[in-house]
Order: sequence, then C-alpha cells, then structure tokens
Amino acid sequence: MSTQLHQLQQEHLSRLQRDYAALLEEHRLDCLAIYSGHANAFFGDDQTPAFQTYGHFMHWVPLADVQHSWLVIRPHQRPQLYLYAPTDFWHLPTQLPEEPWVSEFDIHLCSDKRQPALEGHAAIIGDTTQLPDAHQHAQRNPDALVHGLDELRITKSAYEIACLREANRLAMAGHEAAQAAFLGASGELDIQLAYLAGSRQRESAVPYQNIIGLNDHAGVLHYQHYDLSPPKQRHSLLVDAGRRFRGYCADITRTHAGPDAPAFFAELVHALHGLKDGLVSGVATGADFVDLHEQMHRQLGDILVTHDLFRGSSDQAVAEGVTRAFCPHGLGHSLGLQVHDVAGLHQPDGSPAPPPSAHPALRLTRTLERDMVVTIEPGLYFIPMLLTPLRQQGLPINWTLVDHCLPCGGIRIEDNIVVTDQRPTNLTR
Amino acid sequence: MSTQLHQLQQEHLSRLQRDYAALLEEHRLDCLAIYSGHANAFFGDDQTPAFQTYGHFMHWVPLADVQHSWLVIRPHQRPQLYLYAPTDFWHLPTQLPEEPWVSEFDIHLCSDKRQPALEGHAAIIGDTTQLPDAHQHAQRNPDALVHGLDELRITKSAYEIACLREANRLAMAGHEAAQAAFLGASGELDIQLAYLAGSRQRESAVPYQNIIGLNDHAGVLHYQHYDLSPPKQRHSLLVDAGRRFRGYCADITRTHAGPDAPAFFAELVHALHGLKDGLVSGVATGADFVDLHEQMHRQLGDILVTHDLFRGSSDQAVAEGVTRAFCPHGLGHSLGLQVHDVAGLHQPDGSPAPPPSAHPALRLTRTLERDMVVTIEPGLYFIPMLLTPLRQQGLPINWTLVDHCLPCGGIRIEDNIVVTDQRPTNLTR
Repeated sequence: MSTQLHQLQQEHLSRLQRDYAALLEEHRLDCLAIYSGHANAFFGDDQTPAFQTYGHFMHWVPLADVQHSWLVIRPHQRPQLYLYAPTDFWHLPTQLPEEPWVSEFDIHLCSDKRQPALEGHAAIIGDTTQLPDAHQHAQRNPDALVHGLDELRITKSAYEIACLREANRLAMAGHEAAQAAFLGASGELDIQLAYLAGSRQRESAVPYQNIIGLNDHAGVLHYQHYDLSPPKQRHSLLVDAGRRFRGYCADITRTHAGPDAPAFFAELVHALHGLKDGLVSGVATGADFVDLHEQMHRQLGDILVTHDLFRGSSDQAVAEGVTRAFCPHGLGHSLGLQVHDVAGLHQPDGSPAPPPSAHPALRLTRTLERDMVVTIEPGLYFIPMLLTPLRQQGLPINWTLVDHCLPCGGIRIEDNIVVTDQRPTNLTR
Repeated sequence: MSTQLHQLQQEHLSRLQRDYAALLEEHRLDCLAIYSGHANAFFGDDQTPAFQTYGHFMHWVPLADVQHSWLVIRPHQRPQLYLYAPTDFWHLPTQLPEEPWVSEFDIHLCSDKRQPALEGHAAIIGDTTQLPDAHQHAQRNPDALVHGLDELRITKSAYEIACLREANRLAMAGHEAAQAAFLGASGELDIQLAYLAGSRQRESAVPYQNIIGLNDHAGVLHYQHYDLSPPKQRHSLLVDAGRRFRGYCADITRTHAGPDAPAFFAELVHALHGLKDGLVSGVATGADFVDLHEQMHRQLGDILVTHDLFRGSSDQAVAEGVTRAFCPHGLGHSLGLQVHDVAGLHQPDGSPAPPPSAHPALRLTRTLERDMVVTIEPGLYFIPMLLTPLRQQGLPINWTLVDHCLPCGGIRIEDNIVVTDQRPTNLTR
C-alpha cells in the first residue's frame, strides 16, 4: 500500500499546486502563508489542551498536531514548509516521518517561532490573532479566498479517499473492541478505553470526542461523559467514534442491543441498518442531499408504522413532525480533514446554502458531486424532551412501546460514503 | 469519609468567605465576579479541545469542567453561583452532584450565557477577553487582587489536603496498573490506557499530560508522545501521571527498571528512592525550598560518586555543573488546583521571587509554610544533549557507565508532601 499511497499523494499535491496556483492568480496574490496554529495555555496556568492543525495546512502537510509552523505557497514553485522544531531537552525533538511526501516540500526546521518573509501581494490564513503583526501589508483570512480554498476540499483526491479508508479500517477495529467490552459488561469509561486500544490512538488524537452511551445515554445526541461504573442493566450501547489517519477523519456509529433490551429494540436496530443501507444506495453524483435527508424522514415514518410505534400513516408521521421528534439531527455531513468538513453549507460559488427551516441541524445542503465523502447516519431515538410535546398533542403514538424503549435511549448507524457516478463506495465496510 | 469531608469543606468555604471578605475590603470592592472560562473551538472548526475550570473558581466550586459560569462573591453574603445549564436534547442536562457543598451556595441554573449584574465597586477575574463587555465599570483581573487571591491558595485547608490525599490514592492505583502493564510487555499507549483504567479517568480529565516514557524516552523530561508498539527491549519505564479529585491534582512519578536494564540501573532507581525520602524529611515549616533544591544537588553528587558515575568529589560534581547536567529540572513545585500551583515564584507580599540563575527551571522559591503542599521529585537522567558538553570538557565522568545507561533514559521519583511544623505528611504513601 505504501508505494501506491506515495504515488497518490504526489498526484494529490500536484493537484493542490495547480488549484492553488489558479486561485492565487484569480485573487492576484503572489504568495499565501498558511499558519498551522498553536495551542494556548489554560487561563492563569501553564498547561495546554490538545491541539489540531488548521485544516488548510493539513491539506498539504499530513500532520495533525503541528504548532507554530508555516506553509508558504507561491504559484508554480515548491511549497515552503517552516516547521517549528525547537532543540531543547524537555521535549522529543521534532522528527519528520519517514514518508515520501517530505521530499515534495522545501522544509526549514526552525528553532524559533519565526514568521516567514512574504513578498508582493500576500495573504495569510489561519489563527494569527495572537501573533505579532509581522506582515501588515498582507490580507488576513480574506473571505473569498478562504471560500475558494474550502471549495477545493469538498471533493476528495484518490489519496484523500485512501486515507479516509485507512482511518475507517482503524476505527472499525476500535468499534469491534468496544462491542467486545460491552459484551464483557464494561461501563462507559472502560468501553472508551477499549475503543482507544482497539483503534490504536489516545483520546487527545481523536477527531471528535467519542460518544459512548449506555442505555438512556444513547439518546443524548452529543453525550459528553463516560460513567465510571457499569450500569446494573444493559439495554443498549451507542458508540460514535472515529480515528484520524494522516489528518483524515473516520466518523462511524454503531448501536448494539444489550442483554436486558426488549427483543423489539434489537429489531429496531436491524431496521436502522436497513434504513442506512437504503440511504447509502441513493448517494450518487447529482443527488440533492436535502432530498436524501427528506427521504430518510419518509423511511423513518415507514419504520415507525411498520414497527407499530406510530398508528397512523407514514406521511402523517412526517407531516406532523413525529419523525423529527424521533430523529432531530441531519442525515449526515461532509467528511475530510475535519469531522464536519468545510463548505457543507455553501453553494459551489461560495454563497451560503443554509439548511431548510424544518431541518436546522442538517450540516450538508449541497448537490452531491463525484468524490465527495459524506456520512450517512440515520437515527431513531427515545428522547423525553422531544416526545413529551407529542404526547400532549394526542398523536397516535404507541406510548406503551415508547415507554418500553426509553431505557434503550436510541439508535444511530453511520457509515462513510464516497460519491461516485455509479454505485457509492462504502469506506466503512 | 463523606461526612468528614463535608465538614472539612464547610470549614474550607467559611475560611474562603472570611479571607475573601478581608481582601475585598482591603481593595475597596463591593463584589467580585469570577468567570469559569470556556473552551474555544479550533480555528475554522466546530470541535473544541478539553477544558479546565479557572483555578480561583474551583477554589470554591469543586467542578473541574464548568464553562460559561460565574461565581459572585460579596463580603459576608452567601456566594452566588450562576451555573450555565442549557436545556437542550444534544447534551446531558447539567446536574448538580449530590454533594453537600451545593447547599452552601445560592445556585442559579442559567439557560443562557448571561453575565450577572454587579453593583458598586466591582472586579472581574478570569478569561473574559472574548465576552461582550457588560461591565465597563468593573476592574478586570487587577494584579494586586489576583496576587492576593493566589496567596490564599498557597497554603491548603484540611479539606484541600483531604482532596489531594484522595487524588493521590486514585493516581497510585493507576501507577500500579501501569507497572503491571509494563511487566506484561505493553508499549507506551497501552501503559497509558492501563493507567487511565486503574486511576478511573479519561485522558481529557488528567491534570497534566501523563508522561509514559519507555527506555530512552524516560530521559525526555516532558516526553509528549505514546508509541503505539512496544519496543524490542525493555530497559526502563518512567510514569509521571496524576489524577484530579474535586479539582485537586495528584502529581506522582515512578520509574521502573525493566528486564533488559543493567543491574546497575536498578540500583540507581533504588538510590533515587532513598534520595527522595531524605529530601522529604527536610520538608518543614521554615525550610527554604531553594536550599532543599541545592541539597538535592549535593546528594545527587554523592550518588554520582558512590555509584562510580563521577570519579571526582561530590563538591566538584556540583560546582562544575555535573549534577545539573544529570538533573536539569527543579526539586518540585507547589501543588493544588493546578499542577504547578499559583504563587510559587512570589514572596508572600506578592513581589516576584524568580529562581536562582543557576536553577532557572525551579518553580518554587519560597520559604515553606505549614499546610503548603509541594512535590519532591529528584531525578537523574542520561540526556545526550546535556552530557555531550561535559564529555568535551574532559570531566572525570565514567563514560563507559554513562553509555551503558543511555538506553534507560533516566529516573524520577516524585511524591506529594504536606508541610507541617513537625514531620512532613506524605500523601503518596
């Protein structure tokens, strides 16, 4: 794989060279400096939180934790990488990976936090708010340019797709370890540690905070804690957890019915797998993601009716907002160097494309193009805060069954999909 | 323990009430608002890193991850806690712990990020740089006041000492698990995960990034990575890892000789334990921490001579900077709500007390007072970057032995100690 990945990366970098050159010329810029960013210490303290490299920097340099460094792009010249590499005995010296991309850059190892010289018409992007203003003549984060660069990231090169595939492979090993820990009656913290061990990563390197929700915690969409002790009963486990590979993010969700769940819940989990597969098959060049999202709601309505959770019609379940109460989040989002990748809510020309008012949480509103990578993540939850108003409205919901499922929290199944002109490629298999 | 801890906490809060009232009156302030702080998303992204509550906020409220919240102190009135607790279905609702401190505050659960009203002469402390300026008349982070508040944290109440003791107990369980993983031939990542499992915590809750260094990584003082694979040979393991309890930090280091280390290295580890114990016995009210640090160097000189690493006198080893090359860091630091706690480099009157020029890394320069809590962490390392200049100077160092030890990296042994008028209390036992 390594040789092939090397070749793909060279093509990726050539494409970036070409696309950046065109964009810089369009914006009449002689050079563009991309700042990696840096972590700031907690207020009044000398400890710093984890950091992640600025996305546009990682688009070139596949290192997810580079600080105080600069990348300078000039049309038709080799990219210049100013890598902060202090020589001290406190830290491990910065070492370049033994990967062939290193030969594609002119690399300057810098012992101090210097800003590179910029000549002519220059722009700087990245979080430079706390840097001394060494380049007063340069534009900072100009909107139109940043939109153009975001747009370069919406479709993925073959190299990027290979990285996303590898990230998926590593994450799936974590999901298997998490499932095994659940079968072994572990609590949330130990399931998380099993996931990290299985996916070979530390928590501060995950692309987003893993959601490890047992029982009703599976119904807290961004559940942010890990209980230390296992619960007495094990109804369900929802694991939404990823992995980076060379900066590229996997974002996978699996839900497991536990030994104390009603058989009905396991059937619902099975139905959601089927719903996910059906939606994946609709992912293709030219498909409108908002349409796919609405398709999810219609099919969720079918599931609610088929499984006797809703005793009206599927159309009524959608029209009366019942499916939205059972699934308040969007169908998915763009995926790449950020878990919610850039430009999902913009048109190709950079103009805003906000989500429909009925679906405010949808993070992707575009028409799908070949080589976009998106998540497909239908869900079905039992969230008291959302269901209580429906109960008061007297809608024909089978509340006995709902109450039976409340301790299971909810279900989400999420895969990562490459858009093609024909059948979509599922990276999560 | 719980009832006793409750009583100690009430006394702690009463002491804070009294001390804050005196300080506010001294500074002619009617009220003081302490901002908890909040995490900022990574630049250009919607993901945020881990967060820790501002120390002065945690001095009152024992929650290490409170965001967007305010504590308002007025002399001789109950503290007002404005706790940000949005009601949404995305996150687990904020729930107050079932701990008796809750009854000591007037608690306002706030669904929005409101700033509390402040009347009269007011001051605000904390990281408010990104908040709208709702209190133009209030002083922000006035130096003299902050120094006064820092000074309130230099000696610990019985409650704080009990919390530090519990943090130590939990961390030591992690150290035992890490040692077991090392015996089981795990690599750095899996030793770290074993530590987290043993100490019952997630990585984003640790008070500082755990150092888990195998072999020569034990000689990288702030080693910041975890290798994914175990090394072929196992010479040594250095684990510098902590735990919070109610915000209070344990900071413990242990070093283990591995099966592939020379017997000589295990003897050195034993000697460093003895050095640590000897230095701990010198911790007492009235002792000068800089003197203790210099004592560490004299005794390190003795160890270098006794173990045939240095073939001159102990005095010469100190005078020629040999001990500093073998141990470039300070003897220890103040410990509390921050791992390097506040006011270590100030005199009691708030004036700066910088470290001696020969020992720039020393983080505590004060005369010890009763109920201060400090770390005592002597070390002895084989750091090529520091030893190479000595080699060129022709000093009487046993380079054969040094070269023999280089693959072991180094040794640090660190305990957490309460200063008393008599024998010190070691919290790490």
